[in-house]
Amino acid sequence: MDILTPKGFLFSAVEAAIKKPGRKDLALIYSEQEAVMAGMFTTSKVKAAPVRLGMQRLRKGKGQAIVINSGNANACTGDQGMKDAKEMTELVANGLGISPQMVNVCSTGVIGTPMPMERVRQKSPLLVDEKGKATVHDLAAAIMTTDTFPKLMSRTIDVRGKEVTITAACKGAGMICPNMATMLCFIMTDARIEATALKAALKEAVMKSFNRITVDGDMSTNDTVLAMANGMAGNTLITERSQAFKSFTQALAEITYELGKMIVRDGEGATKVVDVEVKGAKTEKDAHKAAMTISNSLLVKTAIYGNDSNWGRIMGALGRAGISMKEEKVEISINGVKTVSKGLATGRDEEANEAMKTTEVKLIVDLHLGKGSAKVLTCDLTEEYIKINAEYRT
Amino acid sequence: MDILTPKGFLFSAVEAAIKKPGRKDLALIYSEQEAVMAGMFTTSKVKAAPVRLGMQRLRKGKGQAIVINSGNANACTGDQGMKDAKEMTELVANGLGISPQMVNVCSTGVIGTPMPMERVRQKSPLLVDEKGKATVHDLAAAIMTTDTFPKLMSRTIDVRGKEVTITAACKGAGMICPNMATMLCFIMTDARIEATALKAALKEAVMKSFNRITVDGDMSTNDTVLAMANGMAGNTLITERSQAFKSFTQALAEITYELGKMIVRDGEGATKVVDVEVKGAKTEKDAHKAAMTISNSLLVKTAIYGNDSNWGRIMGALGRAGISMKEEKVEISINGVKTVSKGLATGRDEEANEAMKTTEVKLIVDLHLGKGSAKVLTCDLTEEYIKINAEYRT
Repeated sequence: MDILTPKGFLFSAVEAAIKKPGRKDLALIYSEQEAVMAGMFTTSKVKAAPVRLGMQRLRKGKGQAIVINSGNANACTGDQGMKDAKEMTELVANGLGISPQMVNVCSTGVIGTPMPMERVRQKSPLLVDEKGKATVHDLAAAIMTTDTFPKLMSRTIDVRGKEVTITAACKGAGMICPNMATMLCFIMTDARIEATALKAALKEAVMKSFNRITVDGDMSTNDTVLAMANGMAGNTLITERSQAFKSFTQALAEITYELGKMIVRDGEGATKVVDVEVKGAKTEKDAHKAAMTISNSLLVKTAIYGNDSNWGRIMGALGRAGISMKEEKVEISINGVKTVSKGLATGRDEEANEAMKTTEVKLIVDLHLGKGSAKVLTCDLTEEYIKINAEYRT
Repeated sequence: MDILTPKGFLFSAVEAAIKKPGRKDLALIYSEQEAVMAGMFTTSKVKAAPVRLGMQRLRKGKGQAIVINSGNANACTGDQGMKDAKEMTELVANGLGISPQMVNVCSTGVIGTPMPMERVRQKSPLLVDEKGKATVHDLAAAIMTTDTFPKLMSRTIDVRGKEVTITAACKGAGMICPNMATMLCFIMTDARIEATALKAALKEAVMKSFNRITVDGDMSTNDTVLAMANGMAGNTLITERSQAFKSFTQALAEITYELGKMIVRDGEGATKVVDVEVKGAKTEKDAHKAAMTISNSLLVKTAIYGNDSNWGRIMGALGRAGISMKEEKVEISINGVKTVSKGLATGRDEEANEAMKTTEVKLIVDLHLGKGSAKVLTCDLTEEYIKINAEYRT
């Protein structure tokens, strides 16, 4: 699919050798016009300096540039880390001739190592000078760490005759390696939209996408999603009450869902994408809890890797999920083969094992208690995952 | 260490070919005198029939026999499962000439398959006839499933001049394979003790041992700990207020802790036992939550396997544990090497990596916030675990 670039967004990427030389690791997103901005951040209590700074700056709901580095997370770096994050925004702001308040910074990489500010200082003028020389593809490549492929997605919508473009670049290989695999996502759009509407749309999109994927239940200190809307499409202003708000939110949700799927597919060592759907739960919260518990169960994930429709492991996960359930009402199907009905085996395990021999597995659990439902995307767990993560630093 | 047998306990074990022929898979514990009994069971909402039956029968706090089978969990087996569990106790009770109410049943093995009752009926008379022919070692061997070694422990205490023996036989390879690796533990003692005191002692011992071990966070539908005290040591009655209650509880806690350690050491594919201690937490609950989150983090477990003192992963786990914490107060040490002080790297990672090259790893996290502390035992996560669990049924 062709990736479009929304009007007025310029990119650059340079090599600052933040962890080591050999690749572009410092990138810039710049909007020619001031943009409304919204963001969502990791809920971890251990937040990297750029995350804490971003949460402050996003309060006013506007901005014009984002500087991003890979190779160093600037996390667990104390007061110096916060000074460095601020300085990174100042260096770019000075070059661009805008206020540092209009610049955000995102970092991903090793935890606990001070930022090599000397090299960042050296390279920031070049980063600013080269704005417009890089494409959105270059941007997606520069922010990769353990990712095996760049992650981009775009959509256009029509707002009363004006074409609006939404494009997002994302990095993350399933939050399965938090020293390097923070999830960062940058959403750029030329839509004219109210800050509150952008915030609401972003929240809904993230809830239905990034908050519904899990590889190993670990969460990074740096996870960040930022959205910038510069209004250069010239459309009628989108507000929460306008008709276009729905289609905007829908497009945004589709983009983030597709990117989330790419992250799961890129999960280290993964051989299958697993779509876990729990329905018939007493509440939506219960459904989400159950889907998450199944998705994070090592036993379920290893069984899926082994093409083993081991529904006893799914029942086990449901039992300890802390939800309302009645064993005798549970129904489970795997890739369309019903293995459990009314809590009892249907005797179709062999058939299900065969149906699982594919790269996409769809697990449906129906609790037959109420109307709560939820979907979670995850992947299987393989020896390769262990290998990568046991040998990451050694 | 020599394993003692408390007075008045007789054992037998026969081959009933419950899953397949070739080993003894049906065992009996019989006390010559009626015993006071206490039990603790899985908190999973999916409880096997024997668990539900046991919870009912334990209400009166007494019993005289336990029949145990491996090869079939009698879980997710509906009404028939409950009928079968009851019949298993009746078969033994009739042979022994006691009330079925005085018999408990425990099962472990495959989920969702009806019990092969014909073979159980055939073999139950032999099981009763042979009581006294097997040793406690035979018992421990008969209840093994994926265990690689039998798990037994005993202690004696002196109660006003009378020697009291406590012995426990246990099975479990870390709850890492719930179709086969239920944790079952049978505690037998000749102590004279009040039922309420036995219950209190058991609860405390389990809280400090089996409830503090985790291999993969999964929990079985069949987990059961049963304690029988037949009073045949002839000691002064132990009550919750008597001096001997403390030493009895202490001995019981030591036994269950050692057995818990054996389960972790027997965790499938494990190469290291990991002792996670969190102290300085605001509350004990916070400490336990933090220790559990660290212990169940795939990233921490794989790093430990790789001798990698990757404290960023520990900080990451703390951040998402849902506890009170201040990053800038955290202190972490690994096998005596302090890697984090006041939330910042000490630069001693290499030294810590070296110190981890052993089969026992001691992780200490000090949150420096309060007096809450907790310990959890776990093991590392290896390719072998994936292999075993992906290939279990296929």
